[in-house]
Order: sequence, then structure tokens, then C-alpha cells
Amino acid sequence: MTGLSPGATIGILGGGQLGRMLAMAAAQLGFRSHIYCPDHKFPADQVTDLVTRAAYEDKDSLEAFAASVDVITYEFENIPVETVGWLAGKVPVFPDARVLEVSQDRLQEKGFINALGIATAPYAGAGTAEEALSALEKTGYPAVLKTRRFGYDGKGQAIVRSEGEVKAAFDSLGSDKIIVEGFVNFDMEISVLVARGRDGEVKSFLPAENIHTNHILDVSICPARIGQNLLDEAVALAEKIVAELNYVGVLAVELFVSPEEPRLRVNEIAPRVHNSGHWSIEACPTSQFEQHIRAICGLPLGDTRLYGQAVMKNLIGDDILDMKHLLADPDANVHHYGKLEARPGRKMGHVTRLYPLDVKIDI
Amino acid sequence: MTGLSPGATIGILGGGQLGRMLAMAAAQLGFRSHIYCPDHKFPADQVTDLVTRAAYEDKDSLEAFAASVDVITYEFENIPVETVGWLAGKVPVFPDARVLEVSQDRLQEKGFINALGIATAPYAGAGTAEEALSALEKTGYPAVLKTRRFGYDGKGQAIVRSEGEVKAAFDSLGSDKIIVEGFVNFDMEISVLVARGRDGEVKSFLPAENIHTNHILDVSICPARIGQNLLDEAVALAEKIVAELNYVGVLAVELFVSPEEPRLRVNEIAPRVHNSGHWSIEACPTSQFEQHIRAICGLPLGDTRLYGQAVMKNLIGDDILDMKHLLADPDANVHHYGKLEARPGRKMGHVTRLYPLDVKIDI
Repeated sequence: MTGLSPGATIGILGGGQLGRMLAMAAAQLGFRSHIYCPDHKFPADQVTDLVTRAAYEDKDSLEAFAASVDVITYEFENIPVETVGWLAGKVPVFPDARVLEVSQDRLQEKGFINALGIATAPYAGAGTAEEALSALEKTGYPAVLKTRRFGYDGKGQAIVRSEGEVKAAFDSLGSDKIIVEGFVNFDMEISVLVARGRDGEVKSFLPAENIHTNHILDVSICPARIGQNLLDEAVALAEKIVAELNYVGVLAVELFVSPEEPRLRVNEIAPRVHNSGHWSIEACPTSQFEQHIRAICGLPLGDTRLYGQAVMKNLIGDDILDMKHLLADPDANVHHYGKLEARPGRKMGHVTRLYPLDVKIDI
Repeated sequence: MTGLSPGATIGILGGGQLGRMLAMAAAQLGFRSHIYCPDHKFPADQVTDLVTRAAYEDKDSLEAFAASVDVITYEFENIPVETVGWLAGKVPVFPDARVLEVSQDRLQEKGFINALGIATAPYAGAGTAEEALSALEKTGYPAVLKTRRFGYDGKGQAIVRSEGEVKAAFDSLGSDKIIVEGFVNFDMEISVLVARGRDGEVKSFLPAENIHTNHILDVSICPARIGQNLLDEAVALAEKIVAELNYVGVLAVELFVSPEEPRLRVNEIAPRVHNSGHWSIEACPTSQFEQHIRAICGLPLGDTRLYGQAVMKNLIGDDILDMKHLLADPDANVHHYGKLEARPGRKMGHVTRLYPLDVKIDI
């Protein structure tokens, strides 16, 4: 495998902060980035001179985009599979359309994970409120009804605690493609960022512990505060998944850590760099963003050792207004995504702090 | 002092790799960068969507540029002083035109340094070959004849070892504004990157040791391998210089370390971020680039402690062709400036490696 040389252009579908940080990592290695995005999204547009603003269904724009780049990737998984499949006929796209299809549909995703012998929450699909009632006999109460596709940060979800709540919950989702997910008794949510190169080389970052507030990631701590066996097991599961998918790029695997067996259950996978890996920018020789660029460009994967324990805190909405105070903190590595309007719940930036490897993180 | 808020735009005069890395550091903090550059220079243009390609004397373009930015800085010191002075009438420019004027003229620069009670090499100005001969009586042989302005990386210089060589050396420079600099008996060249904020706050990075090959910086090692007293003294000299200049931004101070008194002599100052500080990207919480952005934006200066000893190696010309091998080295932090053509002597990128603070660096 030869790999792309610096000067080559990476096409990135999506213009949010993940695309921004991918483009910045690409620039460090001498690659150019071409952002393709339907919306006027500031984050990624600001850090490259190559931008196409067009719909994902606009074949003329896609054609020109494909002709201008050497490889294509995406920064979020809600890109139409058809778009990715069509582009893949013109230029290599990583991760590929099959991975995207699996990860866009919670039902397919869980089926795929279970087929690998990896546990998930109990689940079943439902097309009607009646089917949801049947599904709940399998999962038990309480459970969560979710749209199979296009939900994130707690959107497209409804909790049901009893039979009487099912119809209203089902109707609130406004879809006939629903998955019912049983609750998992878990102590902690963790994630593994794993990379696989075009030549099959696999490297993982140490698992991070993720703390959510209002369904949005609030804090990630790496390494997760669990035993070495569980850390190793989580990495092994993630590496099994990328191997099975012939995956190329960085994949995020979210897992629940339970007090009883099976100790680890996969919650979901995201075929992209992930908010729960942002600490890697400062904490590792290679960040998740650089690793993704290396992987899709056919370059050797970088080192993922941890320089120190890392605590990443998201800056959500008005949190960002505290920027000057944060800049005065000698331990804060501050990242601002360049979004002008600090709407509630909007991810505006993040802060990473590093600590020696041998101290107890108390958060 | 309020300071600029993210979303503000920083105007950068010059489009080379220093501008590129400044723009990338600005982006991390949520600032936009507008590159103004007469040439089609790839490095900085690639990492922002705001670029003006026009001459430094083009008033209409400068006017529009000034109207589009909140603060202006520059990435190299050979910008016309008139341009900087004119822009400063429209929008704050840091460092200011006076600093630029002093640093553009080796004669003024040495006069300024000496006036602070800080040693330099012996020197004298010369407008003719005859004056150069007189100057050499002061400096002794061998000595270097340099153009007072616009030399870098060994260009615009001629060594004279005896009276007989003076006329040819003088003529080779093609200028009547010459400085004759006597040789300094030195063991090492070091540099201090020092930052001063708009409120007068001053923070220095630890001095780096610089090894040149063919008059071009080859390797920087931080901290320089000299005693703590000399490290402290070098920092004190640099901080005296920025205080005296009411400087705002990052200033590079290059010094010779001699076996005899005065142990430290200033070689030159550069009113900008500097090649000998690139290791700060990985080795410190705040890089020289982020520090410069913080300073000119009126934000608190960041922490400059060293995580580890750093060794930065420039990738000159064909060195860059070894990129894939470098990417396979787990200890190499590789930076490629996005230049397509690897001409001899051209700075194409750099690599930084970190080592524990307590090991002996043997290079």
C-alpha cells in the first residue's frame, strides 16, 4: 500500500466541529481538506479554503466534489447512504457505505453486534404501538422507545415505565420504525476509539469514561476508572468490531459497564471520530483526528499511549461565555469551535486537563 | 482590558508556515484568520477561508483588509514598515511599527540592544568598502559583512578573513547599507521565546538550544543544555527587551553563549513567532502560536511549563520525502507545511520528539 502523499485533498462530508478538527489534523500532516456541507455551518468552513455548500442529493455538486478530492470521509453518520455509495463509485470513501448503513439503523446495529457474540441491551423492533407492547414483554419495563434512525443527544427517544404509557410514547416519536430497548443496570458508560488502517493495522485508544448530563456528553475521563481487565476487554470488543467490518478510519464504540455479567454491553457504535475522544488531542502523541486522517489516507497509524490522565469537559451553550476565565487556568486546554451563537444545548467547545498517571481523579 | 472574543478575526500579514500555524492556533480558540499576502503562498491560505492576495503597497486592498479584521499581526519581519504604520491608523497592529523598524535594520537593532546594557557582537556600520575596512579595525578579523536589511538564513552575508577580501565581499552584497559584525567566540546558540500581553503581562518559554546547518536552523533542543543560571539570565534579558519595547506578542531573542564574559550576547531579535519555538506545540500547555494569539487579542497568557525535553528537527528540502517513515515512528510529531515542491533549502515541515525531563539528550 502506498498511501496518499501530503498535498492530496481529503473530502469531508459535514461541516461541524468534528469536521473542523479533522481538517486541522489533516493540515498538520500537509493535507488539504474540502468540506461538503448543505448548511452554512461555520465550524469546518473556517479552517480550509475548499468548501462546497450543496445538498447531499445534488449530483452535479457531488460530481465536482469527487473530482476535486483524493479520498472522502464523513464527520457524522446521518449522511444519506445513497450519497456515500454514489461517491464511492468515483473515489475511495472511508468508512464505507455498509458501515454507515449498519450504524444508521439501531436495529441493524444491535443485530450486527449480537451476531459477533457481543452483548447489547435487550431489544426488539416495532412498527406499531401494539408491536411495541409485544417488544416490551421481551425487554421488560422500564424501557426506551427510540426511532431506529437519526436520533442523537437524547432526541427521538421516549421512556416508558408501564403499559399505559406505551401508546403515547410511540405516537410522540412520529415514526413506524421504532426500536424498544430494555434498560441495562450499569455503573458507568465508557467508549473506545479504535482505528483500523487500509492495510488492516488496528490501534485503540484507552477507553474513556463518559458522564452525561441532560442526555448530552458532559465529561470524559481517560482512562475510565475501571479495572485493567475490563479496559482490556472493552478494547478487544472494539477491535473485533472493526476487524469484522473491514473498517477503515476511527470508530467509536460506546459500552455500558455492568456490575453483573455480561460486564460489558455495546450501547452503540459511531463510524467516525467522537466527542468522547477529544482528550486525545493533548493526552496522546496522535489524536483521534490525526489517527482518522492517517487511516483513511493509507498511512501508518500513530501512537496512542497516554501522556497523562485526561479529563475533557464539554462547553455547552453559555458555558462558552466563561472562556476568559478558562484561558486564565494554566491547566486548561481550551477549544472553541467558532460558533457565534451560544444556544442552549449546543456544543460550543471543550476543555481538556491532564493529570499525572498516578493520581486519583475525583469528579 | 476586555480582550477580543472568539468569532473575532485576526489579520495576518504573510502567508508562510508561521502564518499557517498562527491561523491554526487561532482556530483552536475560536478566532478566524484573514491572511494578507502578495504571493500565492500555499502554507497559510490552506487553513482559512479568508485570504487577500495583494501587494503590501496596495492601499485599496489594505483598506478592505483592515475593515475586515479586529487586530493585525505579521508572520515575518520583512513587511514594509509603512504598511504596518498605515494599517495601525485603522486597526490595532501588534507588534507595532517601531519594533518592526528596529528589527528590520541590524544596525538599529544592535544599537537598541546595547543601549539596554545587553551585549552583542562588536559591530559597526559601513556605506562603502573603505568604511568597511575602518569598521573591521573595530571588530577584528574574521568578521561578517551583512546587509543591514532583509537578510535571512545566511543570505545577504559574506565572511572576510583578511583586508584583501573586503572589497570583493562588500561588492558581492550589492548594497551601501552594510553592517560589519565581529565574530563571537561561542559554544552554543540559544533562543528565548518571550510573550508580552496587551496589559503588560510577560511569560517566557524555556530557552532552546539551536543547531544550524548551512546557515539554516536544523535542530532546536529545549531546554538548552546550559546551567540554570544561564537559562535564567537569558530569560531575564529577553524579558527586559519586551518590557523596554512595550512589546505585544511573541518575540524571539537569539543569543550566543560564550565561555568567557559576557556569557550571553544577543545575536538578533525577531518580532514574531520563530522556527526555534516549534517544539512548544507539543512540549507545553500553550504553544508559541497560541501565546502570540492570546497576547495580541488581549487575553491572559497561557502556561509555558515544559511537559518534557523537546527536540525539534526541521525537514528541509528532500527531508520531507521521508514523511512515511517519520509517521511510522511512535515518538515523532510530524508537521508538514503543505508546500508542494521540495526545493533545496526550503523549510517543508518539522518533527518534534519529547523525552522525559530527567534524561540526557545526546545529539
